[in-house]
Amino acid sequence: MALYVYKFGGTSVGSIERIKGVAEKVKQAHDLGDQIVVVLSAMSGETNRLIALAKEMQVQPTEREMDVLISTGEQVTVALLSMALHQLGCDACSYTGAQVKILTDSVHTKARILHIDDAPIRAHLAEGKVVVVAGFQGVDEYGNITTLGRGGSDTTAVALAAALKADECHIYTDVDGVYTTDPRVEPKARRLNHITFEEMLEMASLGSKVLQIRSVEFAGKYNVALRVLSSFKEGCGTLITYEESQMESALISGIAFNRDEAKLTITGVPDLPGVAFKILGPIADANIEVDMIVQNIADDATTDFTFTVHRNDYLRAKALLEQTCVDLSARNVTGDDSIVKVSIVGVGMRSHAGIASTMFKTLAEENINIRMISTSEIKISVVVDEKYLELAVRALHAAFELDKVPANA
Amino acid sequence: MALYVYKFGGTSVGSIERIKGVAEKVKQAHDLGDQIVVVLSAMSGETNRLIALAKEMQVQPTEREMDVLISTGEQVTVALLSMALHQLGCDACSYTGAQVKILTDSVHTKARILHIDDAPIRAHLAEGKVVVVAGFQGVDEYGNITTLGRGGSDTTAVALAAALKADECHIYTDVDGVYTTDPRVEPKARRLNHITFEEMLEMASLGSKVLQIRSVEFAGKYNVALRVLSSFKEGCGTLITYEESQMESALISGIAFNRDEAKLTITGVPDLPGVAFKILGPIADANIEVDMIVQNIADDATTDFTFTVHRNDYLRAKALLEQTCVDLSARNVTGDDSIVKVSIVGVGMRSHAGIASTMFKTLAEENINIRMISTSEIKISVVVDEKYLELAVRALHAAFELDKVPANA
Repeated sequence: MALYVYKFGGTSVGSIERIKGVAEKVKQAHDLGDQIVVVLSAMSGETNRLIALAKEMQVQPTEREMDVLISTGEQVTVALLSMALHQLGCDACSYTGAQVKILTDSVHTKARILHIDDAPIRAHLAEGKVVVVAGFQGVDEYGNITTLGRGGSDTTAVALAAALKADECHIYTDVDGVYTTDPRVEPKARRLNHITFEEMLEMASLGSKVLQIRSVEFAGKYNVALRVLSSFKEGCGTLITYEESQMESALISGIAFNRDEAKLTITGVPDLPGVAFKILGPIADANIEVDMIVQNIADDATTDFTFTVHRNDYLRAKALLEQTCVDLSARNVTGDDSIVKVSIVGVGMRSHAGIASTMFKTLAEENINIRMISTSEIKISVVVDEKYLELAVRALHAAFELDKVPANA
Repeated sequence: MALYVYKFGGTSVGSIERIKGVAEKVKQAHDLGDQIVVVLSAMSGETNRLIALAKEMQVQPTEREMDVLISTGEQVTVALLSMALHQLGCDACSYTGAQVKILTDSVHTKARILHIDDAPIRAHLAEGKVVVVAGFQGVDEYGNITTLGRGGSDTTAVALAAALKADECHIYTDVDGVYTTDPRVEPKARRLNHITFEEMLEMASLGSKVLQIRSVEFAGKYNVALRVLSSFKEGCGTLITYEESQMESALISGIAFNRDEAKLTITGVPDLPGVAFKILGPIADANIEVDMIVQNIADDATTDFTFTVHRNDYLRAKALLEQTCVDLSARNVTGDDSIVKVSIVGVGMRSHAGIASTMFKTLAEENINIRMISTSEIKISVVVDEKYLELAVRALHAAFELDKVPANA
């Protein structure tokens, strides 16, 4: 007998019919003799509807009251799913975040989970019930309702799986797994049967928005086996664990990309200790997030310093950098907001040499000029002109044979 | 500094604009220096919308889950009102029933309040906050969400007023008080400034559905001064207390009526001990509520037995009675489902003779035939043909001069 936590997002419970579909799926699993905990989001659109109501009441709605308001969305879906399960003859019981209880800190609208009381859930599971828990919400030590921020239902599911030492945590969504890259860019993209947490984190943070980063971090921290799969079609999805797959000994697992990048360069900066801080300090103070950072030493005791920011922050960052340029007596500031980042990700890099050169050779053969390079242990990112994005992704996908299921190791 | 509990029903919070209107009203009272606790219902229509969703999920929705579902309605309004108050610069804090906490028994969908923890509310009031509480809902000893049944928000308000020893509990509704009779039947009906709990109970149970009977009973039991007034227009409404008014020394306070009655008679019943039980036992077993009961002794050692039921139960009750007629060897069963009950209510009856005869004389002058009579200490009810309802009410209203403000005692 296994214990599973299933999480269904807003699209998966977006209508009466879909909630009934979820009930069927849950009942099937329960009938096989497994213990099932279900975590639900609000019906799609409901949270936005409630936020719109709030904004009509108050220009900047109080965050504590916002949490009281929007937490009703999941409370509705857990009750409805429990009823649908009862209708199918499957015993079930709903819980709000406060009832479980999912204890969080008091940072309303983006609270963090501190503790989960697993005893009542275990008791219900032992009675043969499906336990249906409202995602996204918790309660602080004073009894105030809190929410975990957008996508927080994934975090709830993983936290419950950790507290209950579940065999797997299934995240049901509208895609059927994690792909080697975005199928809209490369139709040959292939669903991965398995990926490691580290790879998933790199894929997610680079723009493959299947799972919330926080929930993946959380799953990794508590060693919860995560499986991403579709609410709407059958399939085994993609399993995310620590172990490297024995079946898929690929050099790289996927290609991530990010269209929302812009790069900024300050040249002729006197190469003195502390210069990086002098350049990036004002940027950080303005709450602008910096992604890639590259520094070259020039031959005249000056350095060129390049970094990327979100495209929305480009103009603000440029203005700050121009002031820094004056302050440091640097040469000049240049920038480009029509660049993208393309990354290859894979734990196979650790044990295989030559992956970077294959990447650079592939791009060179397509005449794609590389504007920046940044590497980590399991990732190589390049910045290229925006117009080359699709070409670069497809060429790399082919070069690393990501469309083919890897041979056994 | 006084402490008031204000309760606003679903119509009063039925839209964004109305919630803002409630916020204005609450702020005005708060600005005068009084302590205000607000109890809210769900926006009108919301509870029915949620029930409809539930019925799509399950033929007979589980009551525990029903409570989880429909309690979200009030949770939404308390958050929205708190935001509206904040927008007006008035400090406020929302509470669900579970947070307050309003401890109830575990009878889902019609729970009874067992205890209220007034400490957190007092603490917030002491900080100068308006405390906004979700009506209609509570929590049982196991942490399950419960609801008090339709109209339960009135009960929440009265229970809070009792727990907090509030100076008055204001029930804001869509009528501006309790009237001498229904103004749709007698346009000269006059709003009463004051009425006693006993009178209110008789008026409410007889069909003047301004307040939920349970909340009036509750207010009487805990001696909470209740005031019924309009959300939409200014005025002092009607105060309901134990004291008999010094100002209004009327013989009777109002005329109630009930259109939904039907009467049944079984004649020629052998007049033996236990016969009433033999007649009414099967009716009660079928969960049919009996209202008036009249028994006459005939001269031949048999008795005629007449009672009234709700018109919806007429045919069922008649079938049962016909079986009883056979069992008891009684003569026959007759019935009439086009009758109504008209009652005059007033604590003045206790100390004044001749009120019944005034009532009967008035009806006789209008040629209205009285079909049944029943009396209690502060009420006289008669059953008349349906067609005479309006005539009877207007004639009695005039005869007892209910359109005139009574002279001082």
